[in-house]
Amino acid sequence: MPLCKDNKNYCVAGIDLGGTKIYTAVADNNGNLLAETRAPTCPEEGYRRVIERMAGTVLEVQKRAGVRAIRTVGVGSPGQLDLEKGIVCTSGNLGWNNVYLRDLLAEKLSLPVILDNDANVAALGEYVFGAGRGHREMVYITVSTGIGSGIISGGRLIHGVKGCAGEIGHLTVAPGGPLCTCGKHGCLEAFSSGTAIALEAEKLIREGRGSAIKKQAQSRKAKVAAEDVGAAAAHGDGEALGILCRAASALGLGVSIVINLLNPSLVILGGGVMSMSGLIWDDILEAVNEYTLKANLSVVQVVPAGLGERAGVLGAVALALQLYPVAPHNGRFAL
Amino acid sequence: MPLCKDNKNYCVAGIDLGGTKIYTAVADNNGNLLAETRAPTCPEEGYRRVIERMAGTVLEVQKRAGVRAIRTVGVGSPGQLDLEKGIVCTSGNLGWNNVYLRDLLAEKLSLPVILDNDANVAALGEYVFGAGRGHREMVYITVSTGIGSGIISGGRLIHGVKGCAGEIGHLTVAPGGPLCTCGKHGCLEAFSSGTAIALEAEKLIREGRGSAIKKQAQSRKAKVAAEDVGAAAAHGDGEALGILCRAASALGLGVSIVINLLNPSLVILGGGVMSMSGLIWDDILEAVNEYTLKANLSVVQVVPAGLGERAGVLGAVALALQLYPVAPHNGRFAL
Repeated sequence: MPLCKDNKNYCVAGIDLGGTKIYTAVADNNGNLLAETRAPTCPEEGYRRVIERMAGTVLEVQKRAGVRAIRTVGVGSPGQLDLEKGIVCTSGNLGWNNVYLRDLLAEKLSLPVILDNDANVAALGEYVFGAGRGHREMVYITVSTGIGSGIISGGRLIHGVKGCAGEIGHLTVAPGGPLCTCGKHGCLEAFSSGTAIALEAEKLIREGRGSAIKKQAQSRKAKVAAEDVGAAAAHGDGEALGILCRAASALGLGVSIVINLLNPSLVILGGGVMSMSGLIWDDILEAVNEYTLKANLSVVQVVPAGLGERAGVLGAVALALQLYPVAPHNGRFAL
Repeated sequence: MPLCKDNKNYCVAGIDLGGTKIYTAVADNNGNLLAETRAPTCPEEGYRRVIERMAGTVLEVQKRAGVRAIRTVGVGSPGQLDLEKGIVCTSGNLGWNNVYLRDLLAEKLSLPVILDNDANVAALGEYVFGAGRGHREMVYITVSTGIGSGIISGGRLIHGVKGCAGEIGHLTVAPGGPLCTCGKHGCLEAFSSGTAIALEAEKLIREGRGSAIKKQAQSRKAKVAAEDVGAAAAHGDGEALGILCRAASALGLGVSIVINLLNPSLVILGGGVMSMSGLIWDDILEAVNEYTLKANLSVVQVVPAGLGERAGVLGAVALALQLYPVAPHNGRFAL
């Protein structure tokens, strides 16, 4: 990671807040990471402790990078947010309700904090520093426990009226289909999320089938998870491949909807489930080809994420740079 | 229509180009229409004649309004456009292929011309002058022979990378469903457009059913059309109501997809099929309620269009004002 000593007085911090870990970095004004750290989230200790720990990670990376002052802090948070008020309204992962995350952290650090949801922040990370560079019309989709997305159009994040844009996981892809965690039926998330893949495997096992998947879970001494389906499929198990194929087709349909509506030049697929992309990529693309309007298909690329688990923290850095771009940027992003 | 004499030197023209008629108006800098006219399109005479006639309507309204000079001309066109080059790439309604509409019209009038597709332009019309005033996050959906939409986010039209954003008519709402004009299966347009409604009625009649619908068409001495289904349904015919209910449910699903992805505060439904909205509105809203995420549903209104057949021409005026806003606007739009 290059150090730009000239920029050391003009630094920002980015925090990727997750249900299990806080991932924090400090970067110079060109987005070069100067230091990074991880701390456990431990949401069970209550939101005040979590926010204290977040502030602590910022001070830690600042010290380690030898940075005199941080200008601003960008934060990506899970859950449903109110961006105007800087509140985490609800988050299952954090167990939070109406937590004034932005202002509490800003008070603790005496610094301006800019907050956005994790999918948007990861999209920004990929746009500014990753696979999305140069694509002012792009969508980042994260396929993990749940499915979310961040939409960039005209080089700017699309938030919608309350910051809830990008809820691709809850597009209905099969009316009357399986029940989703949101209470609706037939959502994309109920087909293609890690949770849905695991549920489908459990169903199979309850029916006395899916022995190869069960074996994988047993060897991990854990409950059946999406990764077990992936592992069994990698060994050529037909049942596991069937589950993944169903997930991939639904995901491809979701991707096609995004392409038809937004005419992006790039769709980036990231998140934990995409770690088995080798097994499902062809099925995803087949569905995208089938369901996308030709004119829109001809100008779009569908690609894997470029930043891996750093998308969030780099996006948080980009978010912070967006608020106070203290020096002219190198043209890598115009927000 | 109020006349703002002070503004008479700073006027714009808007042209709503359709397959059957050219609808042109001149407006002052505040968007007040000073004169309007309609001329037949007659696309069979070739694109050069059509463009000449378009230019003629501009000169006509300018003269009738007593306007010294037109600053710029906005044009809404059907078909698939290349906005960068100002080309109508293909349009079934006009029978055009790769017509340099923008530059040919600009040359003819010696004026700057700004071009956009008809759905985008109608969305702009509703946003600036109609039901969408004040809603910087809104979607206008036109349900007519086909189904299209214009998306406004952050107060700006979303075009995508090639101007093809908003293709809501070709979202797949039922994989493997009926064949669409685009060659794909199960598109929204194959369920809810006027064309699809008429096709469904024809199918019924071929099966020896749908007598009430058939009677309506016979009384018009015409081929079965969506309006016949509407007329029969208005008289309580169960078969006609069934066709409309199916169309309305699919449309509601399409609307829910837009709301989940874009989190708008307003969705406006316009177009010919919506003239029977009294018969289908409840079914549309029921599907929207069923398929939309609660957080996004709670902040959105779904309403009928406010400008009727004037949406296109007023949108073209807004488009022209957007290019050269020569005086400060009254705050009604920020583009």
